[in-house]
Amino acid sequence: MSLIEDLNWRHAVKAYDPAKKVSQEDLNKILEAARLAPTSSGLQPFRVIVVENQELKKKMVPGALNPEVMRDSSHVLVFAAWDSYSDEKIDKVYDHHTDVRDLPRGRFSSYTDKLKEIYGAQTPEQHFAHTARQTYIALGLAMAQAAELKIDSTPAEGFSNEVVDEILGLRELGLKSVSLLYLGYRDEKNDWLSHMKKVRIPMEEFIIKK
Amino acid sequence: MSLIEDLNWRHAVKAYDPAKKVSQEDLNKILEAARLAPTSSGLQPFRVIVVENQELKKKMVPGALNPEVMRDSSHVLVFAAWDSYSDEKIDKVYDHHTDVRDLPRGRFSSYTDKLKEIYGAQTPEQHFAHTARQTYIALGLAMAQAAELKIDSTPAEGFSNEVVDEILGLRELGLKSVSLLYLGYRDEKNDWLSHMKKVRIPMEEFIIKK
Repeated sequence: MSLIEDLNWRHAVKAYDPAKKVSQEDLNKILEAARLAPTSSGLQPFRVIVVENQELKKKMVPGALNPEVMRDSSHVLVFAAWDSYSDEKIDKVYDHHTDVRDLPRGRFSSYTDKLKEIYGAQTPEQHFAHTARQTYIALGLAMAQAAELKIDSTPAEGFSNEVVDEILGLRELGLKSVSLLYLGYRDEKNDWLSHMKKVRIPMEEFIIKK
Repeated sequence: MSLIEDLNWRHAVKAYDPAKKVSQEDLNKILEAARLAPTSSGLQPFRVIVVENQELKKKMVPGALNPEVMRDSSHVLVFAAWDSYSDEKIDKVYDHHTDVRDLPRGRFSSYTDKLKEIYGAQTPEQHFAHTARQTYIALGLAMAQAAELKIDSTPAEGFSNEVVDEILGLRELGLKSVSLLYLGYRDEKNDWLSHMKKVRIPMEEFIIKK
């Protein structure tokens, strides 16, 4: 199957079969696609929290727009972005880059100096606006990977960030939740969206040729 | 090839061969992947501007971090998000949904009323923060589709939004540029990144299990 076929196959499932679980092997592929997502300057300024524990999932439900979708899914992935950039975080990433590539540390220092200058002049709010955006690249690729495996997924922004950050202890890790991705297998009978045609705006409206 | 193989194959190319152009057929597939991207409430609050005209591309260069990469690429895609939500925009999308699905208009009115209430209480700045995030899902899927076709791509946030918005007349369309995607074929000799190992943080650091 091609990516386009996979994207046509998928939709945001509205009812999961709570008895069906995503295998560890498949879950690893979905996480690998998210890990391989390109990000601004390669900084990967986010983490993915994998919630399989059913008790913990229940605690995250208050404030969710579709509580039963979260509850019945197999796994919940939480995409959580850095609350801010710092010189230390930038150096850590680029030290890893040079180490893996067998280059001397500091090989990219003129570039990292520029990054530090740019982010040094910004507020933590501006940082988070930027790190949060990056998570959506990984969210999209995780959904595409799930679809390739014929695993259903539902992205969700409708939840309480405060509740999720608190339950998962994200603040202490310098992270803030951005979106959730429910994974599992659809309950065909109760998923009303399964039986509806996929709708997107026509290509001629979506693109503007110049 | 699987998505994971495609993502491992790709990197942000730093030098393009200006003589090699992406075919219309391949370009259409890349745009289709972007069009199929899931978005919050299915609103698809962005457009993709396809810039093939070389003169126009040159005008977009001032302020670009990597001007020669933009210049030598085959096409530049501009991901531009709605500057704000409105009741009219929401109705237009959902009228299209019901029309395509052969449902009576207003079938989703309890949902759209909720959306109008939520966005009605927000500022245009909050709207754009949200619409801009959605573009990154499409950006990621466009890169994945390019990689499936063995077409190179370079995502870019380092450019002058003011210049691009002005040159393309985006303000009049209620759009604001968010990111660019350069497409083309790498100049293997001059693309220094082609010869370097791909680096991502280790999986055990990227995910947090709960």
